[in-house]
Amino acid sequence: MSNKLWGGRFHGQAADWVDEFGASIHFDYQLAAEDIEGSIAHATMLAKQGILTAEELEQIITGLKKIQKEIEAGTFEFSVKNEDIHLNIEAKLTALIGPVAGKLHTARSRNDQVATDFHLWMKHRLPVVKEAISNLQATLVDLAADNVGTLMPGYTHLQHAQPISYGHYLLAYFEMLQRDYERFTFNEKHVDILPLGAAALAGTTFPIDREFVAEQLGFGHVYHNSLDAVSDRDFAVEFLSNASILMMHLSRMAEEMILWTSFEFNYLELSDSYSTGSSIMPQKKNADFAELSRGKTGAVYGHLMGLLTVMKGLPLAYNKDMQEDKAGVFETFDTIIAVLKVFTGMVSTMTVKKDKMRAALKGDYSNATELADYLAKKGLPFRQAHAVVGMLVYQGIEEGLALEEMSLKELQKASNLIEEDVYEVLDPQTAVNTRTSLGGTAMANVEKEVVAAQSLLAQRQ
Amino acid sequence: MSNKLWGGRFHGQAADWVDEFGASIHFDYQLAAEDIEGSIAHATMLAKQGILTAEELEQIITGLKKIQKEIEAGTFEFSVKNEDIHLNIEAKLTALIGPVAGKLHTARSRNDQVATDFHLWMKHRLPVVKEAISNLQATLVDLAADNVGTLMPGYTHLQHAQPISYGHYLLAYFEMLQRDYERFTFNEKHVDILPLGAAALAGTTFPIDREFVAEQLGFGHVYHNSLDAVSDRDFAVEFLSNASILMMHLSRMAEEMILWTSFEFNYLELSDSYSTGSSIMPQKKNADFAELSRGKTGAVYGHLMGLLTVMKGLPLAYNKDMQEDKAGVFETFDTIIAVLKVFTGMVSTMTVKKDKMRAALKGDYSNATELADYLAKKGLPFRQAHAVVGMLVYQGIEEGLALEEMSLKELQKASNLIEEDVYEVLDPQTAVNTRTSLGGTAMANVEKEVVAAQSLLAQRQ
Amino acid sequence: MSNKLWGGRFHGQAADWVDEFGASIHFDYQLAAEDIEGSIAHATMLAKQGILTAEELEQIITGLKKIQKEIEAGTFEFSVKNEDIHLNIEAKLTALIGPVAGKLHTARSRNDQVATDFHLWMKHRLPVVKEAISNLQATLVDLAADNVGTLMPGYTHLQHAQPISYGHYLLAYFEMLQRDYERFTFNEKHVDILPLGAAALAGTTFPIDREFVAEQLGFGHVYHNSLDAVSDRDFAVEFLSNASILMMHLSRMAEEMILWTSFEFNYLELSDSYSTGSSIMPQKKNADFAELSRGKTGAVYGHLMGLLTVMKGLPLAYNKDMQEDKAGVFETFDTIIAVLKVFTGMVSTMTVKKDKMRAALKGDYSNATELADYLAKKGLPFRQAHAVVGMLVYQGIEEGLALEEMSLKELQKASNLIEEDVYEVLDPQTAVNTRTSLGGTAMANVEKEVVAAQSLLAQRQ
Amino acid sequence: MSNKLWGGRFHGQAADWVDEFGASIHFDYQLAAEDIEGSIAHATMLAKQGILTAEELEQIITGLKKIQKEIEAGTFEFSVKNEDIHLNIEAKLTALIGPVAGKLHTARSRNDQVATDFHLWMKHRLPVVKEAISNLQATLVDLAADNVGTLMPGYTHLQHAQPISYGHYLLAYFEMLQRDYERFTFNEKHVDILPLGAAALAGTTFPIDREFVAEQLGFGHVYHNSLDAVSDRDFAVEFLSNASILMMHLSRMAEEMILWTSFEFNYLELSDSYSTGSSIMPQKKNADFAELSRGKTGAVYGHLMGLLTVMKGLPLAYNKDMQEDKAGVFETFDTIIAVLKVFTGMVSTMTVKKDKMRAALKGDYSNATELADYLAKKGLPFRQAHAVVGMLVYQGIEEGLALEEMSLKELQKASNLIEEDVYEVLDPQTAVNTRTSLGGTAMANVEKEVVAAQSLLAQRQ
Repeated sequence: MSNKLWGGRFHGQAADWVDEFGASIHFDYQLAAEDIEGSIAHATMLAKQGILTAEELEQIITGLKKIQKEIEAGTFEFSVKNEDIHLNIEAKLTALIGPVAGKLHTARSRNDQVATDFHLWMKHRLPVVKEAISNLQATLVDLAADNVGTLMPGYTHLQHAQPISYGHYLLAYFEMLQRDYERFTFNEKHVDILPLGAAALAGTTFPIDREFVAEQLGFGHVYHNSLDAVSDRDFAVEFLSNASILMMHLSRMAEEMILWTSFEFNYLELSDSYSTGSSIMPQKKNADFAELSRGKTGAVYGHLMGLLTVMKGLPLAYNKDMQEDKAGVFETFDTIIAVLKVFTGMVSTMTVKKDKMRAALKGDYSNATELADYLAKKGLPFRQAHAVVGMLVYQGIEEGLALEEMSLKELQKASNLIEEDVYEVLDPQTAVNTRTSLGGTAMANVEKEVVAAQSLLAQRQ
Repeated sequence: MSNKLWGGRFHGQAADWVDEFGASIHFDYQLAAEDIEGSIAHATMLAKQGILTAEELEQIITGLKKIQKEIEAGTFEFSVKNEDIHLNIEAKLTALIGPVAGKLHTARSRNDQVATDFHLWMKHRLPVVKEAISNLQATLVDLAADNVGTLMPGYTHLQHAQPISYGHYLLAYFEMLQRDYERFTFNEKHVDILPLGAAALAGTTFPIDREFVAEQLGFGHVYHNSLDAVSDRDFAVEFLSNASILMMHLSRMAEEMILWTSFEFNYLELSDSYSTGSSIMPQKKNADFAELSRGKTGAVYGHLMGLLTVMKGLPLAYNKDMQEDKAGVFETFDTIIAVLKVFTGMVSTMTVKKDKMRAALKGDYSNATELADYLAKKGLPFRQAHAVVGMLVYQGIEEGLALEEMSLKELQKASNLIEEDVYEVLDPQTAVNTRTSLGGTAMANVEKEVVAAQSLLAQRQ
Repeated sequence: MSNKLWGGRFHGQAADWVDEFGASIHFDYQLAAEDIEGSIAHATMLAKQGILTAEELEQIITGLKKIQKEIEAGTFEFSVKNEDIHLNIEAKLTALIGPVAGKLHTARSRNDQVATDFHLWMKHRLPVVKEAISNLQATLVDLAADNVGTLMPGYTHLQHAQPISYGHYLLAYFEMLQRDYERFTFNEKHVDILPLGAAALAGTTFPIDREFVAEQLGFGHVYHNSLDAVSDRDFAVEFLSNASILMMHLSRMAEEMILWTSFEFNYLELSDSYSTGSSIMPQKKNADFAELSRGKTGAVYGHLMGLLTVMKGLPLAYNKDMQEDKAGVFETFDTIIAVLKVFTGMVSTMTVKKDKMRAALKGDYSNATELADYLAKKGLPFRQAHAVVGMLVYQGIEEGLALEEMSLKELQKASNLIEEDVYEVLDPQTAVNTRTSLGGTAMANVEKEVVAAQSLLAQRQ
Repeated sequence: MSNKLWGGRFHGQAADWVDEFGASIHFDYQLAAEDIEGSIAHATMLAKQGILTAEELEQIITGLKKIQKEIEAGTFEFSVKNEDIHLNIEAKLTALIGPVAGKLHTARSRNDQVATDFHLWMKHRLPVVKEAISNLQATLVDLAADNVGTLMPGYTHLQHAQPISYGHYLLAYFEMLQRDYERFTFNEKHVDILPLGAAALAGTTFPIDREFVAEQLGFGHVYHNSLDAVSDRDFAVEFLSNASILMMHLSRMAEEMILWTSFEFNYLELSDSYSTGSSIMPQKKNADFAELSRGKTGAVYGHLMGLLTVMKGLPLAYNKDMQEDKAGVFETFDTIIAVLKVFTGMVSTMTVKKDKMRAALKGDYSNATELADYLAKKGLPFRQAHAVVGMLVYQGIEEGLALEEMSLKELQKASNLIEEDVYEVLDPQTAVNTRTSLGGTAMANVEKEVVAAQSLLAQRQ
């Protein structure tokens, strides 16, 4: 007979490397705390229901707590022979308290046990993600508060488009992160369902009390279908999808940090603590951490695609393919926490070169829309106003003149609706100040949004 | 000067095939209704704010409604020269009502316009998706109600695991679809924000009323940051992610339909209307639609990965890359609606071979857990009980005997805890009836869940 | 009985929308020419083998050619009721020549027929892709030849690293495209295998001559395993993978075009024919086609992921999932041909601002490595030389002095190995001229590589 | 000044966790052997060119070899503070031999060094992959040789299609693996190019001899463009793409193993060494390793998507994002080697239940094509023959009769072309024997293909 815990009907033995291949202990050891937490709750319920005696319960809990301490102390030896975290802990428990350890697995299976551990693990991690998002949001709002009046070119197609407030720009990322926060909050809904008690796939004949277990572990709901309980990994795909969108946002911010710390843009300088040099070129100061964060987007997208691929076309209920559900999630959690922390650090320590930002608005024609709007307000249909200004820009580039450098006479050749007051309109400060439509870049708006953001974050604590 | 609407500063002309490459009209014509709806709301607001006269408004609305009729009638000629749906409609409006058409584009840009169209499009489509999900849920519940007492083998690792109710199995998919429904409902939250009024990227200097526009179009919120408004595509990625998870679920059901209609399983027979034959093998009856649905999972996953890739590392605000956001979403919508409809049809017309399901439980050892539980309830630690039964199964396979076919004497050799009442326990009907734990497969449970599901669906209407 | 060509054993009828769902004619009509070409070769072989009479062959070929002309003229009516291109053509052939049309399908199945059409389609398309790659390569080499002596900053981490020749930079893309060319050439190997004759999955009992068919259709090989023949889609995944790597390369060039046409970099100006403007901002001139090309990378990656997902875990041989293999390949072919053409056009018409490139080397410390190498050559271990120069750069930035602007005295404070000849070394022209290592940016090298590239392309014709 | 090796211009220090984030030593330690191999070759060349003295060379080589021994013995302490494998080794070398260690980095940069290490690493690994593929091929051929005459149902759409030889089926996988083998062989072409000497991005001013280094390290070519040399990762994407296609193939074989070891199919039994049991259900014997292999397809696809995403839109030359290129490749290598080994083990130890395969052909109508071909050969157009047989099948199912069980009279009602010899035709053995078309399943063919496969493998050694 095989020496495996499930080996009753087996007579052959697997080679060591085959055991190694099948084992998950090299990554699911990270579920140790949750596995023990779940087992204690399960055992407590079994005792409450009269399935374990009080004495058996005490032995089991004492044993499990001892194991937990060993794990925390780093002295527990995980073994590939025991496949996964569940059997590693059960084998040790048996060594500690004898055959009564075997009673712990009454009315449960590894199928519902691992699903429970995974739910619990994520239940503990989502608040950590949300806090890291909040921290970056707070940092962005602080910097925005300092830069309500900092003018810079707003870009579309990486071309100067219209002058904006740098504070306004920063709040755009606040908004994206806010949606990320909401997505991880929604994720909690599908995490907050307890699978334990579904047993292998069909429920159990033991008189268990699943709601009591849920209460102990802090779950709001229990799965109402045992097949679904053991085969559902939606909550993990949701997490990877949310993480992918988060990384998508951060990769955009990273791209801009890399651009803006370049010799050509020169809007930002990262602190030395968040830059690195070159082994060959002594002058280099690279936005390495922004680049690395942008690069890590690849692995996170890949993990999402990986889990979707794993789950595609799997018949119910549990299949071993699903063992591949956790490593990518664990790595993604580590990645997004680290990247959020890095961004919080970079943003809070970087130097904003306000003068360079302001200077970039000189002669860049980013006030062309102002002139078109000016003409439209005087009655010219917008499309015609657009054409008039387009021709003026073309002429200006040919002659090396910004719009504000052209004489009134010259401007009037293009349209006799133009008057002396045009120069006021062409000032970037005016351009920003007058974009007072809701959500527009006018400083008064940005100030209001800063306050709203601060108040939102304050409520969160 | 270029003949483009934005051509003021341009003197060269693009070749036709270059125009064709840059154009989006071959897919964004699908936004026509939303583009006109948004333009009417925008114009109405401009008039309310005194930016358009009442007469101008009337001309514009009359023109737009005429265009809408032409589009509905299929007589409108879309032209690649006019790039996209916005300029196609604007060009036609100009042809119809003259230069006043140019006033419609006051205080907006294509950047906020296309974002608005896309939000509106999805606002109209998400309820359609949710209804199609509900329909499939209802069909599953109906079939479950008919099959509460239909016994079949429950599978893990595609091996017979424990007997279950077929109704119970069907409700597992009900639960998955329920989470899909909730995800698309959450999706509506981030769709329900109006970008119009963000203009190119920074808001506008015109005294517009964005909340009035939102109200007309049925939006609950407006974007509070203009840069975010034009560069946010989260709602589209959410949609593709939700669609991917939905397809993941349906690919699982498809896999099982294909298995279960095979010669070997023979649990189901699809109606002729949902099967196809072979051009060479006259005997074939293939579950083609289940296979095709499973296959379409690939394209949906691909569209998700595609949009995530597009958005990665894009600086703010709008970039032309983002034109690639819609085709995949449109195609995904068509796919999931069709696949949901196909499943609803397949499930409601297929024949369930109850006798074959029941017969598959004969001699399949899927009652082995019952025996282990029986021993555990008599005091044997579960792990030992498991080992005892494992050895009995091994012996049974060698001798060609099912557990229920072994004599009491033989069984007692393995454990003297076994008594005459064991045969009752080994009956699959007992196995199912006694799994009464919450969410378990006991028929009483399944009946309760059917009622709960019906009541949930009833509230939805 | 069903009215389908395979309908002998079917009695129910599918609804129209179900037919529509299952049909592939909306994309596989693109295989029409290949389907007819394959059928003519098949029929010719059947006649040679005595399976068809000479007269039957003539009737069939006459019918097929008539259909081909109708398709070319655009008068052929494709019908969803006939599912796919094969049955559309067969139905029409039957209408034209009567029941003898049914003999054409002797000794073949749709399974080997569609695989044959797909192989043939790709066999015709790969040379088109290779030619488009060659054209872009030629354009890059031409521009490189004009810019061997054009100096610009070479970048790493988007920071100025070392001065390079712009011609050298252009040749880097020549090399990437060369590998792309080689990959598509390798792709031809696995395309060049004929599946026809594998029939449904197992070969046929008719005395066919597969090698004769291969010869007629220009295939170098036939599949030696009939199951493999009908279930292999490696050649399509290879194509999508090669296209993904190609798009990865072009997305990098696109990124740089977008950067380099920005106000900040200003190294390139695109021709008006390859730029677009804004509907609201009259001054805008956007690198729209570069952006759109970069964006289209997403869809190509998505199609790769899509087909890999489709094929995952499919049992042999043909499954309907595999109908999803073509649409993504067709679209990818159109995309890469268009993008390659657009790049060829953009590169050949854009203006290189050589003076701006050269000016960007002023005071950018990109000559720092020169100084470190200078010290290393005088005996200082490179690591120490690096540190010395690092400190000089720090000091220079503080004082606003480029290295070449520092006095000899000041430089000697850092290291007394520095002598008067250092200023020669600090000249970017020297820096470029002296990087004569194989593959280095020295002008002599670049000239040599231009000649080698021209010679490679010349051999290709 | 920063204590980093590149820290000359840096004054701030990064926090430990930031260092940790930026470091790659936790995965690139796997490049240690290649890093040292490359450094020895580089140093040897520097000495040959007179850049190092013979004595310096000896010191460096002695130091490097000492480090190598420590690494092999597991006593080397890798430190996150030293970021990556290159700086870890360099720091240790400095500790061992003093400042002369700094001379090793003359004329190279980490950019070309890491690219060289990665090329070398893959150069060493591709033959390992190819050997593992060959081993599985050999195992399949061996089993095919034993099963040329084993009949079983061939499947399309998972429905019985036509009888085939099991040996024929096994050779289909031989063919897929053959193409995999060819793809990894092609991969070697783009791996076999040496980047060293490209330095940071532009080549070097030192008089190096790159071809001498290439020869020492066994490379056939050197990169001819320094920018390309440091920014090319095509060879890694090719590897991941090839690995994805390989896993696609193996996932198909896995799917069939899982199906065929099921209670319903029962064609195969895995050895106990390659199966596992259940913690709750004593009777279970699961094809866990096939399932896990199928599941691992997800991670491999994900790594491909990850690296494609990383590289998208990166400007030249090196960017820190590219540090994310290796972890996925390393993991993929481990995965495919393990999975290939597992399949080789599973296939060579499993039991083929020939009688069950043969029995599955009874009454399954998989001989229907034979009857249609029989009629076609007697002159009935194939389409009519197909219809006649379709109706007979329908009738057979209704009456519970296989075709071969129908009386001649009954058969003749359907078509008077049917004669007594039909029963011979309906025998599965005849069906297989007569499919003698090239690549068909006839036993004579399969025998020939087995010999061809054996001969191909023999040449490989």
